[in-house]
Amino acid sequence: MFRSHTCGELRLHHVGTEVTLAGWVQTVRKFGSITFVDLRDRYGITQLLFGEELNQQLDENPLGREFVLQVTGKVTERSNKNPNLPTGDVEITVSSFKVLNKSAVPPFTIQDDTDGGDDLRMKYRFLDLRRNAVKKNLELRYAVNRATRDYLHQQGFMDIETPFLIKSTPEGARDFVVPSRMNPGQFYALPQSPQTFKQLLMVSGYDRYYQIVKCFRDEDLRADRQPEFTQIDCEMAFVEQEDILNMFEGLIKFIFKHVKDIDYTEAVERMSWEAAMWNYGNDKPDIRFGMKVANLKFPSHTFPSKENNSNLIDSADFKVFDEAETVVAIAVPGCAEYSRKQTDELTEWVKRPQIGMKGLVFIKYNADGSLKSSVDKFYSEERLKAIADFAEAKPGDLILILAGAEERTRKAISELRLEMGKRLGLRKEDEFKLLWVLDFPLFEYDEEGNRWVARHHPFTSPKPSDIETMIGNNPVIENAAEYLKHPYANIKANAYDMVLNGNEIGGGSIRIYQRELQEKMFAALGMDKEEQQHKFGFLLGAFEYGAPPHGGIAFGFDRLCSILGGSESIRDFIAFPKNNSGRDVMLDAPSTIDDKQLDELNIKLDLK
Amino acid sequence: MFRSHTCGELRLHHVGTEVTLAGWVQTVRKFGSITFVDLRDRYGITQLLFGEELNQQLDENPLGREFVLQVTGKVTERSNKNPNLPTGDVEITVSSFKVLNKSAVPPFTIQDDTDGGDDLRMKYRFLDLRRNAVKKNLELRYAVNRATRDYLHQQGFMDIETPFLIKSTPEGARDFVVPSRMNPGQFYALPQSPQTFKQLLMVSGYDRYYQIVKCFRDEDLRADRQPEFTQIDCEMAFVEQEDILNMFEGLIKFIFKHVKDIDYTEAVERMSWEAAMWNYGNDKPDIRFGMKVANLKFPSHTFPSKENNSNLIDSADFKVFDEAETVVAIAVPGCAEYSRKQTDELTEWVKRPQIGMKGLVFIKYNADGSLKSSVDKFYSEERLKAIADFAEAKPGDLILILAGAEERTRKAISELRLEMGKRLGLRKEDEFKLLWVLDFPLFEYDEEGNRWVARHHPFTSPKPSDIETMIGNNPVIENAAEYLKHPYANIKANAYDMVLNGNEIGGGSIRIYQRELQEKMFAALGMDKEEQQHKFGFLLGAFEYGAPPHGGIAFGFDRLCSILGGSESIRDFIAFPKNNSGRDVMLDAPSTIDDKQLDELNIKLDLK
Repeated sequence: MFRSHTCGELRLHHVGTEVTLAGWVQTVRKFGSITFVDLRDRYGITQLLFGEELNQQLDENPLGREFVLQVTGKVTERSNKNPNLPTGDVEITVSSFKVLNKSAVPPFTIQDDTDGGDDLRMKYRFLDLRRNAVKKNLELRYAVNRATRDYLHQQGFMDIETPFLIKSTPEGARDFVVPSRMNPGQFYALPQSPQTFKQLLMVSGYDRYYQIVKCFRDEDLRADRQPEFTQIDCEMAFVEQEDILNMFEGLIKFIFKHVKDIDYTEAVERMSWEAAMWNYGNDKPDIRFGMKVANLKFPSHTFPSKENNSNLIDSADFKVFDEAETVVAIAVPGCAEYSRKQTDELTEWVKRPQIGMKGLVFIKYNADGSLKSSVDKFYSEERLKAIADFAEAKPGDLILILAGAEERTRKAISELRLEMGKRLGLRKEDEFKLLWVLDFPLFEYDEEGNRWVARHHPFTSPKPSDIETMIGNNPVIENAAEYLKHPYANIKANAYDMVLNGNEIGGGSIRIYQRELQEKMFAALGMDKEEQQHKFGFLLGAFEYGAPPHGGIAFGFDRLCSILGGSESIRDFIAFPKNNSGRDVMLDAPSTIDDKQLDELNIKLDLK
Repeated sequence: MFRSHTCGELRLHHVGTEVTLAGWVQTVRKFGSITFVDLRDRYGITQLLFGEELNQQLDENPLGREFVLQVTGKVTERSNKNPNLPTGDVEITVSSFKVLNKSAVPPFTIQDDTDGGDDLRMKYRFLDLRRNAVKKNLELRYAVNRATRDYLHQQGFMDIETPFLIKSTPEGARDFVVPSRMNPGQFYALPQSPQTFKQLLMVSGYDRYYQIVKCFRDEDLRADRQPEFTQIDCEMAFVEQEDILNMFEGLIKFIFKHVKDIDYTEAVERMSWEAAMWNYGNDKPDIRFGMKVANLKFPSHTFPSKENNSNLIDSADFKVFDEAETVVAIAVPGCAEYSRKQTDELTEWVKRPQIGMKGLVFIKYNADGSLKSSVDKFYSEERLKAIADFAEAKPGDLILILAGAEERTRKAISELRLEMGKRLGLRKEDEFKLLWVLDFPLFEYDEEGNRWVARHHPFTSPKPSDIETMIGNNPVIENAAEYLKHPYANIKANAYDMVLNGNEIGGGSIRIYQRELQEKMFAALGMDKEEQQHKFGFLLGAFEYGAPPHGGIAFGFDRLCSILGGSESIRDFIAFPKNNSGRDVMLDAPSTIDDKQLDELNIKLDLK
């Protein structure tokens, strides 16, 4: 061992002990004939004192930043203590030292506030990882990993490894594929998730399975998506939805406790998908704050159970509202005194292409009870008051109204709500609010193919009460224009998402376990019997041999860690992430391979 | 929840309780108007009693093997207890039941001694996994996983995930590659091990790293090799070989204790590579038994430090020995009375192509002290006695002697020793004997390329005392015939293998951490500067920024589990293994993919 203690270990009670430390030179400060060095390792920083007798050696061979140093010396009490450092009461009076390895001058400083840009830090990721800020993230990630395993172990789950070289069954996302040298012309696929394997394990009787496992999706990368990502993947047999919800809110609460020391004792709120869309315009609402959406106008098919409220805005000759499919509002607390400049800026904000609105209507509900709006021409103060009341605004609030096509407008009001919540400091980094979103639609309509697509995935079960509707009807959509009238349009899924502070951190479902129902599902997705057999014959086969009722969930591990760490970027929580082109710039991968390799794999390049 | 208890849970103290169980029908036994059903789940088997009033329902809809059944009833004490079953004191008097799912008749019986052949069981792996024998293996695997994580966590190791989509740097084994759609003409590789990443993590200061991680090698599969396999991968910084040996024999002892309840308190034996080859003909000797090799004759370069003993067999005009490069013997205890038939059979055994010997010489050291051999014509009884003494034979032993070319003969005597050990019951399944093999040669000679290859891998450090030899000499071999005289031929590695009962379960090394030495190593392997930079530029670069001394080890997780489970087949310990052609016969993978997929990946098939 090159050390007797770590650089984070020594305290006052060690004073007088002879110790050996090894680590990296963080700083060198020379004061006349003595030199102070801060020595850093994974555990902390310890101050070293080089006295006169060693200074000549240092002069001849100066220490540089990031040199690897081994020192031996006596622990001494510091006259000038540093209360910000756990080791700040002591220093090492060095008696001998050895440079274990030199370092070139690093391309950026190894500090929390580094001077390195993103590209440089990714190229030299091995140096970036030395920074305390990054190290804390990886430590948090490991703590979440450990807590997850501890909880699931206590609950009787078994970690069972599923294969990485599997069969390509693209459904939704693209597979990464791996040419097989031993089976010319054939390919493995890398798993997008262990979905079918964990279901097979349920058929096999391993009734509580989990894995923390890499998954792969060959998608065009958006910011903060990675081609390889990690899932906490779980499945249970002989359970109903309620059992899964309880088990896995238990997991997240356990993680809160063991990683963040937060007692999350309250029950996790539950909300139907419809309520989430109605109240927040979003299926993963941030419920740390209110500011719910007021639905002034909407197409009746979107919320069949809700009454329309367009009378509040109708008959005013205001074309923008009259011609809009959807008109929605939020009441922003305490912002009635926004200046013209501020409302103009908000208008510009909603007109950005990412939001895509044509404009913004606002009503100021002044503290004195009077109302003033950008549409005074069309609406009397009385009508404005009615709208404000409908939006549950209080004096002092600013009501923001968006109008346009349903889907885009609902998304826009959701974004605007989140933005206003952020500006008002309502989205507190240290406040955590969990939510289950339930009762999703089972299908979405695919216009291009005039067919159904599975909203979650093709293995998700309908609600028990909808099974008959599904079995008893032909999934084919005869009349594309009236797809909404097809009985499948209203089938609800036995699916659930867990949302944390407005982020979907996990999702799952009770699965189909009957061959007939699974075949019906595949047929709804446009797969004929032959394709079903080719792609999923093993699963349909398994369902014939005593498949138990089962269900599960998968959590996005990278995302979960980043939220717990208070960051928006998952890359900060991955040791060796890829950039937005799917490249590892440190390795310079992907890269070309030898002709011999291609030849052995029976493939050749076909560049356009 | 479909059950109140599991099928392994109920005991006498539950008698009188109303319970609900769910599981699979193991057996159905009808006795007149009552029916007994054994219900099975992951946790055990519970007997169900269906009385008269339910029997009509059973008659109308008979239960079959592997049906999924939910029953409710009262726990009752059995009149006819089954002491072999933990639940054998009780049964459930069923009051109501529901068939949750039917099952077709399984293609083989779900029992320890199944009637299913290997191919059938692999095709229906989801049924094979229901068998208790397979379930026990996966449970053991999870227990080893859990114990490994517990120990390493206690020792301050962090689980840090390394990427799966990396750069192809084939060195030794072939890489599996993954075409990149977003980077046309370029490929990722799947990692053969996280070797370079864990070294980068040491450079980054994460001084105790581990992972239980999938690795990939595209090799021609031999029996019991898998294209994807799992490693316990570990690395430590600021350590010397001794620290690693201590840390990881601690790990294996911890696993013994927590998985097998074995107190392995003795120190793990250590042996140099040379001693292993000398005494056992093998670098992973099974030291559960003796029967050490007696080296009668050998080429002097193979064991430069050893004296030759050919005087014992010389000058007898026995051509077989005279012309052989190597003559080696073992004394098999208590087998002097082997019949002619038995010695003939042994001769046939060593002549099999897998062993490849031309014949077998034997000496019977009879209980009365007389000696009889198959070479009596050439050797007097006195000389036979001298050979027997040299082989440390005792009266009653059978001495077996092999002669031939060094490498093949040494391997053959090793195989023969293991075979005789097995036949004599000396390789006990429940006895575990660990061994460190140390001081391996750093290089092997590659005749084809007239260059060196790394025996372990190119990141393994030479012994500190050999570093100067390595730095100070040109690695190029000027004279192929005299490669043994090259200074590199005698360099020893700072490498170690852990051997358990004759199987290498782990191996590792202290790594090179100096750029200059690493470049020299790459040069020795025939890599020019450009190739070094292309393949390993990131690592050489990292070594310039303060790389600490470090080393590590990797354990073959599948193999470790199979040995602990007392099986020779790793496939029995993998949930979804591949066959010897690298196929998953259950999934039918690999398989062809769509032209669209090929097109998007910018590749086409090039079948010969």
